Amino acid sequence: MEVKELIGHLLGGLGSWLAGDGPESGIVLSTRVRLARNIAGLPFWHRATREQRRNVIETARAAVGRSPSLGGASICTLEIPREVEDKERPPLERQFLLERHLISREMAARDGESAIVVHSGESVSIMLNEEDHIRMQVLGSGFCLEDTWRRIDGVDDELNQTVEYAFSPRWGYLTACPTNVGTGMRASVMLHLPAQVTAKRVPSLLQNAARSNCAVRGMYGEGSNVVGDFFQVSNQATLGQSEEEIIETTDRIVRDIISEEMQTREEMLKHNRRQLEDRVCRAVGTLENARLMGTEELMQQLSWVRLGVCLRMAPRYSIATINRLMIEAQPAHIQLRGGRTVGPLERDAMRADLARALLGKKEMQQDV
Amino acid sequence: MEVKELIGHLLGGLGSWLAGDGPESGIVLSTRVRLARNIAGLPFWHRATREQRRNVIETARAAVGRSPSLGGASICTLEIPREVEDKERPPLERQFLLERHLISREMAARDGESAIVVHSGESVSIMLNEEDHIRMQVLGSGFCLEDTWRRIDGVDDELNQTVEYAFSPRWGYLTACPTNVGTGMRASVMLHLPAQVTAKRVPSLLQNAARSNCAVRGMYGEGSNVVGDFFQVSNQATLGQSEEEIIETTDRIVRDIISEEMQTREEMLKHNRRQLEDRVCRAVGTLENARLMGTEELMQQLSWVRLGVCLRMAPRYSIATINRLMIEAQPAHIQLRGGRTVGPLERDAMRADLARALLGKKEMQQDV
Repeated sequence: MEVKELIGHLLGGLGSWLAGDGPESGIVLSTRVRLARNIAGLPFWHRATREQRRNVIETARAAVGRSPSLGGASICTLEIPREVEDKERPPLERQFLLERHLISREMAARDGESAIVVHSGESVSIMLNEEDHIRMQVLGSGFCLEDTWRRIDGVDDELNQTVEYAFSPRWGYLTACPTNVGTGMRASVMLHLPAQVTAKRVPSLLQNAARSNCAVRGMYGEGSNVVGDFFQVSNQATLGQSEEEIIETTDRIVRDIISEEMQTREEMLKHNRRQLEDRVCRAVGTLENARLMGTEELMQQLSWVRLGVCLRMAPRYSIATINRLMIEAQPAHIQLRGGRTVGPLERDAMRADLARALLGKKEMQQDV
Repeated sequence: MEVKELIGHLLGGLGSWLAGDGPESGIVLSTRVRLARNIAGLPFWHRATREQRRNVIETARAAVGRSPSLGGASICTLEIPREVEDKERPPLERQFLLERHLISREMAARDGESAIVVHSGESVSIMLNEEDHIRMQVLGSGFCLEDTWRRIDGVDDELNQTVEYAFSPRWGYLTACPTNVGTGMRASVMLHLPAQVTAKRVPSLLQNAARSNCAVRGMYGEGSNVVGDFFQVSNQATLGQSEEEIIETTDRIVRDIISEEMQTREEMLKHNRRQLEDRVCRAVGTLENARLMGTEELMQQLSWVRLGVCLRMAPRYSIATINRLMIEAQPAHIQLRGGRTVGPLERDAMRADLARALLGKKEMQQDV
């Protein structure tokens, strides 16, 4: 499949993991488990020739074709010609896939033989020739580590029927970067923590997570900024623990953070209810009326509305609509939907228009 | 009449000068002419005994009673007992009259024998025992210096039938402060200049006005801050010019400022239409949704909405409604309407509620 065709298809819908439902969905946006695998007998990506990289894609393509869980998956290579006038930025198409959480920042920025596999309403996807030959992920709505782990374990087993993984009985799965050796697994949970941010409790939250060997990052993983009060909590160690132990530890830490956030929300409701309502309602008013809006402001306003929905202060909205806007208002989404590359001011205008269309009164009755 | 009775009466309506109509009402809120007069044979207020001050009030009361233009005017003294616990602030009632532009800041702050006369939907009023024995003003909606001058001239003549004014053939009307000697007149125009503020052209505007011997001040006159982009332009000299000359000079200077503002608005529309719409629409969204709002923010948001109405970007509102909110959302209005003294947070809540009630969708159909 051509990447443009895939994107056309994706533009018409939204990942099922963004449904806004599932356990603890008032605080947890989504759960993700990814596994890093490499094909035995082929050099790691950074040492492989173009030919060997193509070989990775073909081997994986065959394996995907034989995997029952991945039946009907879209596979496409990311050979996207760069615009001549725009050598600095990755092509819009790769930026789009990044916004969609289907590829990593590294993969978006990089030319070269790479491909993605997308399946099950974007809840299962695979990057080929990222840092490792195969990086597969399963995304679930809400807090569902156990279930997500079981799903990706199934996909992994099925691919392993066709592909022999680079594996050492002593170290486990071998990966391009030593930090992933062993299970090759990262379990991460995307948490919405507006009360922790407002109460300035994020530093202590980071400390506690680090003590349990968990990392806390922004929405788009390593090196990304925190926007809209969203935090990704994930395990750091991949070695010396079984997959089940990693899931268990991450689960425990996330449960602690959820309970902290719930308690802080309760305190705010008790002591500062009016101030909280004010923030939520102003965000609603701004989103429904602004004519220009940057991505960062949009995320912050949506964060307040999301909190408002959870606290029953903005009952007209659904978390599904908020999630949809969060994704569709990103720069590449805006431009690909509009059918062309546009400058920042016009993007801000299109973003504000989209917010009004999705959250405004008229559209509400049809869309939400 | 008791001051509480007068206030109860005023609370039910709004000064006719706030109708939002009249010439140049897109830029000019209102026009005001005041005359300072003193009663011959009585010492100036600051040197008068209590008995003599009472004499001023009684003499003026008799004159008002015989003035055909002031028939049915309310007269009341401002002897308002201060709350024991609140020695620092003027009583709410005097604060209310100040917000209403019926008394000056000095008079609001001061105990002692003083009184006011209110007539014609608040468009004619007189302070007794302010700095001078008699300070009469006429307020008109929009830009109407000539008409306002003619009205106050009539009132002045009628009072003069009964009261002999302190007058010197050489100096003209004698006043407590030398800056008012001569005509005792101040003509002032309240201008809404959001484009000048946005384009940072206020300093040059101030310079030009000063060169023509005009002062530019905030909404509540001398010493008051500029809020909501409202500026009061008034003549400085009262001596050496006839009343007609003062009116003419002020008229010319104000016309220049109006044309500057119109030109800047045109430029903004031409080059930054979307940014302008964004500011206007965000202000609408904030006013219709906020749950807490300070006076200063309210004035700033209303300033954008007012500009939006003039530029047909916020067609659902009328300037009359904006004016009403500007007055009724002031702290003493909020509290007297609520029937009690309340702290700043509760005032901010009541103010936001009032804004929603006046500008919100449901109330729109009934009120505007």
